Amino acid sequence: MKKKKEVTIYDLAKELKVSPSTISRALNNHKSISQKTTREIQKTAKDLGYRPNSLAASLRNNKSKTIGIMISRINRPFVSSLISGVENTARKAGYNVIISQSNDKYENEVSNAKALYDSRVSGLIVSLGMETKNVHHLKQFTDQNVPIVFVDRVPDEFNSYRVIIDNYTAGYKATQHLIDQGCKRIAHFAGAQHLNVYNLRKKGYLDALRKNNLEVTEELILDLKTMSFEEGSDATKTLLNLPQPPDGLFSSNDTAAVSAILTAKEKGIKIPEELAIIGFNDDPMASVVEPALSTVSHPAVKMGEISAQRILEHSSKKMDSDVSEITMLDTEIIMRSSSIKVNTPHLLEAT
Amino acid sequence: MKKKKEVTIYDLAKELKVSPSTISRALNNHKSISQKTTREIQKTAKDLGYRPNSLAASLRNNKSKTIGIMISRINRPFVSSLISGVENTARKAGYNVIISQSNDKYENEVSNAKALYDSRVSGLIVSLGMETKNVHHLKQFTDQNVPIVFVDRVPDEFNSYRVIIDNYTAGYKATQHLIDQGCKRIAHFAGAQHLNVYNLRKKGYLDALRKNNLEVTEELILDLKTMSFEEGSDATKTLLNLPQPPDGLFSSNDTAAVSAILTAKEKGIKIPEELAIIGFNDDPMASVVEPALSTVSHPAVKMGEISAQRILEHSSKKMDSDVSEITMLDTEIIMRSSSIKVNTPHLLEAT
Repeated sequence: MKKKKEVTIYDLAKELKVSPSTISRALNNHKSISQKTTREIQKTAKDLGYRPNSLAASLRNNKSKTIGIMISRINRPFVSSLISGVENTARKAGYNVIISQSNDKYENEVSNAKALYDSRVSGLIVSLGMETKNVHHLKQFTDQNVPIVFVDRVPDEFNSYRVIIDNYTAGYKATQHLIDQGCKRIAHFAGAQHLNVYNLRKKGYLDALRKNNLEVTEELILDLKTMSFEEGSDATKTLLNLPQPPDGLFSSNDTAAVSAILTAKEKGIKIPEELAIIGFNDDPMASVVEPALSTVSHPAVKMGEISAQRILEHSSKKMDSDVSEITMLDTEIIMRSSSIKVNTPHLLEAT
Repeated sequence: MKKKKEVTIYDLAKELKVSPSTISRALNNHKSISQKTTREIQKTAKDLGYRPNSLAASLRNNKSKTIGIMISRINRPFVSSLISGVENTARKAGYNVIISQSNDKYENEVSNAKALYDSRVSGLIVSLGMETKNVHHLKQFTDQNVPIVFVDRVPDEFNSYRVIIDNYTAGYKATQHLIDQGCKRIAHFAGAQHLNVYNLRKKGYLDALRKNNLEVTEELILDLKTMSFEEGSDATKTLLNLPQPPDGLFSSNDTAAVSAILTAKEKGIKIPEELAIIGFNDDPMASVVEPALSTVSHPAVKMGEISAQRILEHSSKKMDSDVSEITMLDTEIIMRSSSIKVNTPHLLEAT
């Protein structure tokens, strides 16, 4: 991808045969320029596709030394750990970090992209929101050779850096762990399926069942939209009201899994004896709930460090932004009381 | 405070008797300008105090429509709720929000201030870090009439908007609640005392003891530096090892209070019978721990909304930044099982 040439005030000056400073003043509505001239210049600027921030963009060479982060929600512990990782690496190299969150809304992500672009970031680290199905709004960065690193929730197609975890294997291992504990009817809380993190975890779950000759039961697989505490509680009630309720549950995040523990306990269900549960993320809440929640841990801080590293390398080497590089990291199953059945004392000792 | 005039490329042009566009090109190391001229212009720019971002600053009139937030740590639930509040109000008015965290380090706060200044924010919302003892680094904003709203952790002296809670009364009420439950030896986890949020909570605690003719016991008051989970655990062990351990604990945050519950339970202490505990913030963890943690709830979302409102009003009215206005909000005591003793059934019913 070649760096596209931006329309500058010099181009406008040439076109209109006036000085660049007149253009600049007119664009800033300076009172020293007549209203008529101002209108004419602003019209031409618009026609030629001049963007008000191209002046700022021309300052990009001054290096803002700032890494921008676009994430869904800062209150997800995975996200705050990721950001810590970015900051560790960025600060050491003398870079600042500014963050914007989309709250999983696509339109917010679009306007955040503009705000960070206007802030002249040296590079962008992006984890997509739940709603986001295309990434056209990020093209302005690569057009100006500002490197983008997608992390965790990444798009399928976009030439860029990607830092991800092996979600398929993680889903497989989490499900296999429940099978090893003797579970036969394993339910799954799946997240938004257009996001490959959730899609791949579900694939891992399905393959683990098949590999172990366990039936795939549609009524046990619930696609939750946002994987919130409330959704987790409702989904748990749905499962427990089935004629044949599940004896195991793999939830694609800890929030819904913790909610499942609390809801099941309220209904008098014994955990893990009657329902063994494993979550995903290793949020702080996982070790506070009783019984403590088994889960899959992400190397979130490391993912942030690697992401920042990619941007620093890209900037120092002045690489072209047309890159495609994937870094895939492993996850770890953390076994706690919510899934370890009493008849397997060797596992309890190991935790 | 009068808006200080920045040195512009026009000032440099006048001084050096060349065109503004020559100045601009020289400052951007454009190849169309000779090395000699470039050097001369750059030297004069430096001598006159021209800042590379003053060009960007001149774009400020284009309105970045972005609110900057500087906070200590995004992983504090209070902070993420505060940010949600800011975003609610900002997005409705067509403003974006960018965030930077200091991780409670002063030097990070200084460089974050610079990054947000360079991003041409329309206004700044600041909650100070644990280490921050002066706010000189924020003067660049008010010098340019960019409004600042301090929220929660605010400085003692700085003309600006402030949005705070009544920490003194909150500390008093939390302590009074434990006294009402029959506690006689009430311990206190106090935070960094140069921050008035913690200082005022402690004052409220001390006054509640005195008002109820209870002895103030120095060994029961522990000043924790960061109020972390680890510090909470260590402090609880210290308290429980005293010849006369406390029968009540008011912790200035929930993190240390949840840690106290887990640590005390491990030692076989019955909560609330032997040790009644109340925290501060109403973090999500407070309702997940067992017994559920009594706490003081902040109107964090509302504080964020009000803060954003102040910036929008300031910007629309083109007010001078030399303002001093304080908005103080009330808190609420949330009583849960960690402090309600079994001999007061009327309170348990009320929760």
